[in-house]
Amino acid sequence: MATRLTESAEYAHLWSTPRLRAVFDERLQTWLDILVALAAAQAELGLIPAAAAGQIAEHARAERLDLEFVAAETRRTSHSTLGLIRGLQRLLPEPAREYVYYGATVQDLTDTWFGLVMRDVGRLVQDDLTRTHGSLLRLAALHRDTVMSGRTHGQPGAPITFGFKVVTWADEVARHLVRLSEGAERWSVGQLAGAVGVLGFFEPHGQELRGRFCARLGLHDPLLSWTSARDRVAEFGTVLSMVAATLARIGDEVYELQRPEIAELSERTAQDAVGSITMPHKRNPETSEHLDTLARLARAASSVLVEGMTGGHERDGRAWKAEWAALPDVALAAGTAAALAADLVDGLVVDADRMRENLGKTSWASERVLAELSRHLGKHRAQELMQEALHTDADLVTALASSGVADPARLARWTARPELATAAAMVDAVVARGTPGVQR
Amino acid sequence: MATRLTESAEYAHLWSTPRLRAVFDERLQTWLDILVALAAAQAELGLIPAAAAGQIAEHARAERLDLEFVAAETRRTSHSTLGLIRGLQRLLPEPAREYVYYGATVQDLTDTWFGLVMRDVGRLVQDDLTRTHGSLLRLAALHRDTVMSGRTHGQPGAPITFGFKVVTWADEVARHLVRLSEGAERWSVGQLAGAVGVLGFFEPHGQELRGRFCARLGLHDPLLSWTSARDRVAEFGTVLSMVAATLARIGDEVYELQRPEIAELSERTAQDAVGSITMPHKRNPETSEHLDTLARLARAASSVLVEGMTGGHERDGRAWKAEWAALPDVALAAGTAAALAADLVDGLVVDADRMRENLGKTSWASERVLAELSRHLGKHRAQELMQEALHTDADLVTALASSGVADPARLARWTARPELATAAAMVDAVVARGTPGVQR
Amino acid sequence: MATRLTESAEYAHLWSTPRLRAVFDERLQTWLDILVALAAAQAELGLIPAAAAGQIAEHARAERLDLEFVAAETRRTSHSTLGLIRGLQRLLPEPAREYVYYGATVQDLTDTWFGLVMRDVGRLVQDDLTRTHGSLLRLAALHRDTVMSGRTHGQPGAPITFGFKVVTWADEVARHLVRLSEGAERWSVGQLAGAVGVLGFFEPHGQELRGRFCARLGLHDPLLSWTSARDRVAEFGTVLSMVAATLARIGDEVYELQRPEIAELSERTAQDAVGSITMPHKRNPETSEHLDTLARLARAASSVLVEGMTGGHERDGRAWKAEWAALPDVALAAGTAAALAADLVDGLVVDADRMRENLGKTSWASERVLAELSRHLGKHRAQELMQEALHTDADLVTALASSGVADPARLARWTARPELATAAAMVDAVVARGTPGVQR
Amino acid sequence: MATRLTESAEYAHLWSTPRLRAVFDERLQTWLDILVALAAAQAELGLIPAAAAGQIAEHARAERLDLEFVAAETRRTSHSTLGLIRGLQRLLPEPAREYVYYGATVQDLTDTWFGLVMRDVGRLVQDDLTRTHGSLLRLAALHRDTVMSGRTHGQPGAPITFGFKVVTWADEVARHLVRLSEGAERWSVGQLAGAVGVLGFFEPHGQELRGRFCARLGLHDPLLSWTSARDRVAEFGTVLSMVAATLARIGDEVYELQRPEIAELSERTAQDAVGSITMPHKRNPETSEHLDTLARLARAASSVLVEGMTGGHERDGRAWKAEWAALPDVALAAGTAAALAADLVDGLVVDADRMRENLGKTSWASERVLAELSRHLGKHRAQELMQEALHTDADLVTALASSGVADPARLARWTARPELATAAAMVDAVVARGTPGVQR
Repeated sequence: MATRLTESAEYAHLWSTPRLRAVFDERLQTWLDILVALAAAQAELGLIPAAAAGQIAEHARAERLDLEFVAAETRRTSHSTLGLIRGLQRLLPEPAREYVYYGATVQDLTDTWFGLVMRDVGRLVQDDLTRTHGSLLRLAALHRDTVMSGRTHGQPGAPITFGFKVVTWADEVARHLVRLSEGAERWSVGQLAGAVGVLGFFEPHGQELRGRFCARLGLHDPLLSWTSARDRVAEFGTVLSMVAATLARIGDEVYELQRPEIAELSERTAQDAVGSITMPHKRNPETSEHLDTLARLARAASSVLVEGMTGGHERDGRAWKAEWAALPDVALAAGTAAALAADLVDGLVVDADRMRENLGKTSWASERVLAELSRHLGKHRAQELMQEALHTDADLVTALASSGVADPARLARWTARPELATAAAMVDAVVARGTPGVQR
Repeated sequence: MATRLTESAEYAHLWSTPRLRAVFDERLQTWLDILVALAAAQAELGLIPAAAAGQIAEHARAERLDLEFVAAETRRTSHSTLGLIRGLQRLLPEPAREYVYYGATVQDLTDTWFGLVMRDVGRLVQDDLTRTHGSLLRLAALHRDTVMSGRTHGQPGAPITFGFKVVTWADEVARHLVRLSEGAERWSVGQLAGAVGVLGFFEPHGQELRGRFCARLGLHDPLLSWTSARDRVAEFGTVLSMVAATLARIGDEVYELQRPEIAELSERTAQDAVGSITMPHKRNPETSEHLDTLARLARAASSVLVEGMTGGHERDGRAWKAEWAALPDVALAAGTAAALAADLVDGLVVDADRMRENLGKTSWASERVLAELSRHLGKHRAQELMQEALHTDADLVTALASSGVADPARLARWTARPELATAAAMVDAVVARGTPGVQR
Repeated sequence: MATRLTESAEYAHLWSTPRLRAVFDERLQTWLDILVALAAAQAELGLIPAAAAGQIAEHARAERLDLEFVAAETRRTSHSTLGLIRGLQRLLPEPAREYVYYGATVQDLTDTWFGLVMRDVGRLVQDDLTRTHGSLLRLAALHRDTVMSGRTHGQPGAPITFGFKVVTWADEVARHLVRLSEGAERWSVGQLAGAVGVLGFFEPHGQELRGRFCARLGLHDPLLSWTSARDRVAEFGTVLSMVAATLARIGDEVYELQRPEIAELSERTAQDAVGSITMPHKRNPETSEHLDTLARLARAASSVLVEGMTGGHERDGRAWKAEWAALPDVALAAGTAAALAADLVDGLVVDADRMRENLGKTSWASERVLAELSRHLGKHRAQELMQEALHTDADLVTALASSGVADPARLARWTARPELATAAAMVDAVVARGTPGVQR
Repeated sequence: MATRLTESAEYAHLWSTPRLRAVFDERLQTWLDILVALAAAQAELGLIPAAAAGQIAEHARAERLDLEFVAAETRRTSHSTLGLIRGLQRLLPEPAREYVYYGATVQDLTDTWFGLVMRDVGRLVQDDLTRTHGSLLRLAALHRDTVMSGRTHGQPGAPITFGFKVVTWADEVARHLVRLSEGAERWSVGQLAGAVGVLGFFEPHGQELRGRFCARLGLHDPLLSWTSARDRVAEFGTVLSMVAATLARIGDEVYELQRPEIAELSERTAQDAVGSITMPHKRNPETSEHLDTLARLARAASSVLVEGMTGGHERDGRAWKAEWAALPDVALAAGTAAALAADLVDGLVVDADRMRENLGKTSWASERVLAELSRHLGKHRAQELMQEALHTDADLVTALASSGVADPARLARWTARPELATAAAMVDAVVARGTPGVQR
C-alpha cells in the first residue's frame, strides 16, 4: 500500500492524472532508455563497440529487471544507481555488460530524466492551459455583456460583466503559455557531465557526445554541464507554481460565487457525486477548492527548488536530492491542477439572471453618478455630497434628488442600466488576440 | 510502481524508515480501528446496538476489503469515505451495516487518524532524539577537553573544545524533547465533530461520546471540535521542522568538517558503500548531507500547515486537504532525519589529533593575547597594537615581542596552550542535566 | 523618508503599533543599556574598574551619540559595532573608554537585544491575546444560543451557534497563550559567548559573568552560548506566525460574513473612515483583511528563521544576519495583528437576526432528519431516501412526507428548530475554563 | 530612527544601495508624477480642463507637501490615498483641486508605481548582472586552464579548471538576463482600472485613456486591468529571487573556498575593514556570506507574491497589501545582492598556485585511470580493481602497478597531469557567446 495518502488507490486520482502518472510511473523504463541513448551515442563516436550498444538497446526493458535485486543492491552499496546498473547487466550478454552507464554518473541519469520530465509535464500543462484558454475565450464571448457586481474587498461595488472577469483569467493564462514556451528551451535539456562536470572520462569527445546524446532523446543540448546550476529546475518549478496559483484564483472565485447566498457560478456536478453524507442537500465546490489546495503544495515545493539553486561546488547533494522530492511534487500538483481547471472551466455553470438580480440589490450606480456629478460639481465636491447622501436613510437616488444636486430625471437616466462599453472592449481585445501558440 | 521516487522500491529507505512507514502503511486498518472505536463508544451510550458494534469490531479487517471496489466507489461518488464505508458494509452482516460510520464525517475519521499519526510519529521522534541526546552526552564527556578551532564565518578563530560544540547540539535537542512533550497534549487528540462541529447527529450525547471515543484510542479529548482550528497540526509540523533543522545543523557540521582539507570529523562508513563509481577514492558524507535535504522538505511542508490554519467557517477543504499531503511529508522527512541522525551521531568518527593539528596552524591565541594585553593597556589600545602586528610579515608573537608591548616570556606563556575552563564548565553543566524525560 | 512603504509616515500605523515601534525604535538606547549591564557585571567580578562601569552607565545615552559618525565608522570599518563603540567612547572620560564592550562580540550585543525584543514583543502579544480572549469569552457567552448556519466548503449546512464559532477561536487563542508562556523561558535569554562561544576572554569568570549580565537585564541565563543554536529565535517566530494565522482566521471569517449577501458579522467602522472614494456606499472589512495580510508576512519571515537554524560552526553570518531582517518582520507583523485583532473582536457587530434569517433559507434540518430517520431505518437507508428526496423539486419535508417514510407531524417536529445542546455545552466548557494565566 | 535595523543609518548600506533607495525614497514624488501624467492624459481627451492639468503638473512637488497633514488625514480617513489627495489639493489653485486623482483608485496609483519600480529595479539588476557577466567572462578566459579540484558532496574529486567553474556561473547569469528581458514587457506596465476594473468612470474613453497614461510614464499598456491578476508582480519576484539565489551560489563558493584550509579564492578586502575585534587575524568573507543572507530574504518575499496571485474578485486587499511589503523586500534584497556580487566578482582574488597544490594532495587521477583501464578491461571490471586498490595502504598508482593490471609507465603517463580539453571547450563556448543584450 502506498505510504502517502496522495498515492493511495483511493485518492491518487485527486493528486495526479493518468498522463502525469505515466510520466513518473515509467521512470525505470525512461532511465533505461537514457542509458540506451547514451550507449548509442557512444557507439557512434567509437567509445564503445556498436554491438554492445545494440545489445543494451535490445535488453534494457524495465519489465525484465529483477526489482528486488535492484533495490537490495541500491541499499547495500548506498549508491543511487549501482543497483540498477547491476540489474541491467544481468540482462545483458557478457560483452555488453562493461558498456552500460559508461562514464556516466548518477546526476547524468537523473538530470536527463528531469529534462524529459520537465519537457513532458510542461507540454501536458501547455495542452491543458490551451484547452482552458479556449474555453475561457468562448465563455468571455458568450458573456461579453452579462452584467454582474464587481466586488472589491469582498463587497459588491460597481458593475462589471462576467466576460470581463473571464478575460482577466484568460489574459493571465495566456501569459503562462508564453512563459512555458520561453522556459522550455531552458529546461528541456539533457545532462552529461561526468564526475565533476568536465566530462573527463570522455576526453576529448565530451562536447560531441553530449550533443548526440541529447539529440537522441529529443532534448536541447545545454552547451555545458549544469550539475550545480539549478536555475532550469527552479524556473520550471516557479512557473508551474504560478500556473497553479492562477488556477486557484479561478477556483477560489467559483468557490465564493457558488455560495448559495450569491449563487452566480457553480461547478458542473457529476451525476453520482455525493456532496455530504450528513447534509445531503449540499453541493460542494470540490474541484474549485482542490485547485487552491494544489496551488499551496506547488508553491511550497517550488520554493524548495529555488532554495536548491544555492548549491556548492560541482555537485551538492543537499540541494540536489531535495529536487528528487520537490520536482515531482510541483509537477504533479500543478499538472493535476491544469487538468482539473480545464474541466472546471469547460463545465462552468453561469447564472446570468442571478448575477443581474444580485447587482440590482446594490447601489451599483454610485460610480456612474459620481462621474456624472463630477462633471458638473467637481469630483471631490460630488464625493462629499454622496457621502452625505449615504448617511441618510434614503436610497442614493432619492437622497441626491431631495438634496437638489441633480434633477430626478437625470439621476434616473444615470442609474437605469450600467454602461460597460470599456469592459466589452477589453473582452473583444482579448478574444481577438486568441490563444498563444506554444513552443516546446 | 510508485509515482514518486521517494516511495520507490529503490529509494524509499532514504525518505522513510520501517517504523514510520508502518504508521502510514497501516492507514486503512487504523481507519477501520477508528470506526470500531466509534461504534463501541456509541454502543456504550445506546446509540447503536451492541451487537452491531461487536460485528463491526469483528469484521473490520483491512486485508478483507476489496480495495478495487473501495477505490472505484470513492472515485464514482467523489466522496472521500463512501467507498470505504461501502467496502466495509460488504464485510458485515446485514444488521450491522447501518451502524458503520454512524453520524461521522470524513474529518472525524481523518483528523482522528492525524491525532494518532502525530502521537505515534511524535513518539518515534522522541525516541530517536532521546537516543541522539544520549550519544551526544557521551561524546561531550569523552571530548570535554579535546581542543579544536572554533570557526566563525567559515574561518578558524579562537579555540574551543569538541565537547563544547557537542553540548550546543545536545542542548538544542533537549529543548526539542521538551517541545515535543509540551505539544503532545495539544496534538495527540481525537476528533468527533459531525457535520459542522456541533455533533448534532448525536444530540444530546455528543460530548460524552467524544470523550469515550478518544479514550478508546488512547487520545486526549479535545473538549471541543477543531475542524477549523488547525493550530494543533501546524504546531506539530513546525516543531518537527525545527527538529529537522537542528539535525541538519549537525549534519552540515559533519559535512564541512569531513572535507579532507579539514578532516576533523567523519561519518562511519558502511562496509559495502560505494561513494563514487567514477572517483572511487571518495568518501561522501551521505547521511550528513541527507539531513540537510530532509530539513528543507520538512520546512516547506510545515509552512503549508501554518498557512492552513487560516481556513474558513466550520470546514475549509482548501486548507484541510493540503494537510493530507503536507502532514505526512513533514512527518516522514523529520522522522527519517531523526532516525538517521541517531545513527550518525552514534557512529561519528572524531579525529582529535587532526583537530589539534589544525588548530596549531592558526593564530588561535589572539583572543587570549588580546585579553591579557587589555588588562595592562586597555582593550582598544591592545586591539590597535594587534591590528598593527598583523599587518607585519612576522607572526603575532614575534611582532608583538619586537614592538616591546609584552615580554617574550609572557607572550609565550599566553600562547602555550588554550585555556578552556569555561568550555569544560558548559559541557559539565549540560552533561549533569541529563536527558529530559518525555511526556506523551 | 522611509525606504519602505511600511515604515512611511502615512502607512506605518498599519504595519506596527506605537508600543511595538518603541521596542524597535529604542534599539540604540537598548544596545547601550546592554553595554552598561555588561560593564556593571564585569565590575562586580573585578574584570574592569568599578569607576569605568559607573562612567559608562552615566554617559551611555543614545541621544548624545553622534549618529553620523557612528554610521560612517560602521561603513568604513565594515564592522557591525565598531562605529557604535567609537561613538560611545567619544562620550566617555578617557579611562573608561577602554572598558566599553569589554570582551564582547557583535552577537553578544545583538542576540541579547533579540532576547529583550522577544521577551517584550512576546509580552505585548500576550497582553493583546489576553484581551482578545476575554472579549471572545464575553461574546461566546452572549451568543451561546444564537443560531446560525454552519458552513463547510463555503456552503451553509447544519446549524451551529455563533457562540460555538467563537469558542473555537477562543480555544485556539488560549493554546497560543500557553505556547507563549512555555516558549518565553526559552527565548527570553541573554547571550554572552565571546569570539567563538567559550568566553575565552573572561576566563575563568565566563559562566558567572553571563549569569550576572543576564540577571541585570531581566533575562534568563541560557547556561551555555547559543550563537549557532537558533531554535530559540525560530520558535519565537513560528509561534508568532501561528498566532497571526489564527487571527487571520478570525479576520477571514469576518471578511466573508460581512459580505452583504450574508451580512451576519461586520467590523465596527470608525466615524471618519472612507471605504471607497469611487464607490461611496461600500464598507470594507479593512481590519479583517489586513489580519490576513499580516499573517502571510509573519509566516514568510518565520520560515527564514527556521531555515536559519541550520547554521555552520560557531557563528554563521549567512543565517544569523537574515534574522536581523526576519525577526523584526515577524514581530511587527504578528504584534500588529494581535493589537488589531483585539480591537476587531472587541467591536465586532453581530447580526443575530440575519443569522437566523439566513439559516431559515437553507435545508438546515437535514442532519437532524437524517439522525432521526437513521434510528428507524438505519443510517445508510435513510441517506438514500434523503438523496432521492433531494432530487425531486419539492422541499425536503414535503418530499419525505409524500414518500411516506415519516409522518408529517414528526417531520415538522424535527425541523421546527435546531437542537444545539452540545454546542452550548462546548461554549460553557470553554467559558468556564477562563483565560490561561501567562508566564513571562 | 528607523524601526527596522535594515533601514537604520548604520546598517542600511548592507540592505540597499543608493540607487535602489532612490527608487523607493522618491516614492511620494513618483506618486505625484503619476497623478500628473493621469491629469495630462485626461486633459488630452477632454475629460478635465487643460488648465487644471497644467496646474497639477506645476504644483505637484513632494517637497511642498505637508507630510504631517497627509499622514494624519490618511489615518483619520482610513483611506490609503485620501491624505495625499487632500495634501495635494492644498497646493493647488481652487479650480484644479477637483481634477486631482480624477476617477482613479488606490490601486491605479500604487500598481502603476509598482510598474515603475519593477521597470527601474529590473534595469538596475540588468545593469549589475551585465557587469557581473562581463567580469565572469574575463575571469573565465584568464583561468581557462587553471586546474583545481572539482568537488562533489564537499569532497575533492577529479580536476576541473577554475574557468569552467566560472562559466557555470556566467551561463546561469546569462539566463537571468534573458529572463529579465522576457519578463520586463509583462511587468513594466501601468494600471488604470477604476473602481472594479472596467474604467466605468471614464466611459467611453477608458481604453484610450489608459494607453496615453501609460505612454506618458514610459510603461507598457497592459490592454486590460490587472487588479486581481498579479502574475506580473509574482514573476518579477520569482525571477529576482532566482537571481539572488544564483548570486548566493557564487557567494557560498567563495565562502567555502576562502576557508584557510582551502584558500583558493578570497574576497578583496577593503583597507579599513576590521574582520573581528576579538580575533584580529581573521578575514571574513563578508560579502559572500551576505549574498546568501539576501537570497533567503528574497526567496521568502517572493513566495508571498506567488501566494498573492490567488486573490479574489476584482480586488483583494489581503493579497494585494502583502505586496506592499513583499515587493520592496524582494527588490531591495535582490537588487542589493546584484550590486554586491558585481563588486565581489570584479575583485575576486584567485590563488592558482594553491589550487594546483590542493589538487596535488588528492587522488585526482582516478577518473582518468578508470577511463583508461576501462578501454582495456571493461569499465565495471576496472572499477572493481580500483576499489580493491583503494582498500590497500598504498597509493592508487602503486597499488594498481603492483597488482599488474597496468604497467607503471602507462600509469605514470595517465596521472602526470589532468586532461581538460572539454573544460576549455566549454569555457570557450560561453566566452564566445558573450553577454546577452537586454530588453527593457
